[in-house]
Amino acid sequence: MGDDFDRLETLRDDPRDDIPLAHRMKRFVESLQIRITKKLEEVDGSTSFEVDRWEREEGGGGITAVIEGGEVFEKGGVNTSAVHGPLPDRMAEALGVDAKPFYATGLSLVVHPRSPLVPTVHANFRYFALGDNLMAPDDQWFGGGADLTPYYPRLEDTQHFHRVWKKVCDRHDSVADYAAFKRECDDYFYLDHRDEARGVGGIFYDYLRDDPEGTFFFTREAGRSFLDSYLPIVERRLKGDWGKRERKFQLRRRGRYVEFNLVYDRGTKFGLETDGRTESILMSLPPHVTWAYDRQPDPGTPEHRALWYFEPRDWLGLTPEDVPEGTE
Amino acid sequence: MGDDFDRLETLRDDPRDDIPLAHRMKRFVESLQIRITKKLEEVDGSTSFEVDRWEREEGGGGITAVIEGGEVFEKGGVNTSAVHGPLPDRMAEALGVDAKPFYATGLSLVVHPRSPLVPTVHANFRYFALGDNLMAPDDQWFGGGADLTPYYPRLEDTQHFHRVWKKVCDRHDSVADYAAFKRECDDYFYLDHRDEARGVGGIFYDYLRDDPEGTFFFTREAGRSFLDSYLPIVERRLKGDWGKRERKFQLRRRGRYVEFNLVYDRGTKFGLETDGRTESILMSLPPHVTWAYDRQPDPGTPEHRALWYFEPRDWLGLTPEDVPEGTE
Repeated sequence: MGDDFDRLETLRDDPRDDIPLAHRMKRFVESLQIRITKKLEEVDGSTSFEVDRWEREEGGGGITAVIEGGEVFEKGGVNTSAVHGPLPDRMAEALGVDAKPFYATGLSLVVHPRSPLVPTVHANFRYFALGDNLMAPDDQWFGGGADLTPYYPRLEDTQHFHRVWKKVCDRHDSVADYAAFKRECDDYFYLDHRDEARGVGGIFYDYLRDDPEGTFFFTREAGRSFLDSYLPIVERRLKGDWGKRERKFQLRRRGRYVEFNLVYDRGTKFGLETDGRTESILMSLPPHVTWAYDRQPDPGTPEHRALWYFEPRDWLGLTPEDVPEGTE
Repeated sequence: MGDDFDRLETLRDDPRDDIPLAHRMKRFVESLQIRITKKLEEVDGSTSFEVDRWEREEGGGGITAVIEGGEVFEKGGVNTSAVHGPLPDRMAEALGVDAKPFYATGLSLVVHPRSPLVPTVHANFRYFALGDNLMAPDDQWFGGGADLTPYYPRLEDTQHFHRVWKKVCDRHDSVADYAAFKRECDDYFYLDHRDEARGVGGIFYDYLRDDPEGTFFFTREAGRSFLDSYLPIVERRLKGDWGKRERKFQLRRRGRYVEFNLVYDRGTKFGLETDGRTESILMSLPPHVTWAYDRQPDPGTPEHRALWYFEPRDWLGLTPEDVPEGTE
């Protein structure tokens, strides 16, 4: 399935007048799901993804692919769905539109590595259309993004991740704006009650509706860039030694991830409120998590230095000298 | 501090015209905090509560008492607070009132035992007043309740817990109604996205405003009944043997507790949104938690039988014969 990817990488499809964008996007995310799960299995080497197909009573369904207990990936999910039917009331209300048919499709992934030295990553790419005719929807838009949540952050990794996404945006600058998408990501993945960013950001965008063909082209390249943005970091950090201390810090930081997803994340909240498939939605939660009362890392420790990274910064504008001593 | 409790248990104070109810409630919850933490320390025997006093910039503060890593109690918090000042905008909006001074005081506790055979418990008792003059507030009310979240539920424990709360309500039937408060508890502690009750319920009430003196009297007896409702269950179940299997189930069930507190609990959401003290609010989260994808206990196992308890039932109307075979 992934064979055609490289050839397609730089090719822009002609607009199709026989297949709705909705279906082209569905086909794209499903093949991307195969490409990504295959590659992650290869990197893990110890186990494979379990695939669950589910159907939605009102129309459509999804494919949930979950990896658990791997040597490299302690837990991860790469999910696609394509759901349609009459717009649920809660969604109509949130979008400020009258009841009408909708079509939504996308891919959403979260990977929680076992090693505390390897960052957690999240990405999603989605398309939404409203109206009776998918060939000519009343409204349609793309959303998505990718963000990195390291436990022991490194400037090198952070810059690599951002550089990949900046490059993708720059190549599609009629529809994508790295600086703006980075800012949206910083704003979105922020825990107000902790006064802390979830991680080191990435890009986030929504309601891109001006040029659907161009945005689909951007979305495809973004989706296909995910592995490039993440795997080099995994490979670099996987060799590092860690023990109880690093594990403890990782488990506590994962608590922040849970807090973000359950308190703030719109997709999660919306999914739970609109009777989405709970197990697919909550697949994003880390496998093991701890909450301890009011722990602050001691100044001078690597854990304390990590906190410097958990506020929005202009990563690509920094040099190693800008990083507080001892952080790298 | 606890010395006077037994004498006071059945005595109703004369209404005071020199001390506002707000301050009497504050004094009560602070002495209840000492009584409860002392007793829990005694039962645990291995460690003690750490006490943190904190202040709120806009007025008031609180006392957070946390136990961690105990042999019996893996994590627990018994917190009091008394906060006042101008009503924050978000609160005024939620209450549908204009900006005016408020006073809120209460005790909130959560105990997560180490043994999966011992239930988690939660209780809180709180008072709220609005207006410039605490001796004659524009509005004032009490709220509170107690609920039990077992991992391996038993009818005997469930009935004991409910019996204690029914007795307290029955003794104060001009202000308290066990049947109604039990129903409110069942409605409140329910995870819609799981279609599951958080545990076996208890009582829950809010906005009791008709007879402040009578409700304060009820609140005191309720607060003083907490240990009676819970400790006999702890003592009974603590002796039971458990191992990896039970621990695994407990850690997964604790995930539901986190989901409830972060997705639904009004106190938690409100606290986080209104800049409450994060560490005191999230003290309720269990110490260690796991999330695994789509696990269902096999029929016939104790874990599967446990699920029978996680829907609202008329516990006090049941006999052991009503419980599905093998559950007891």
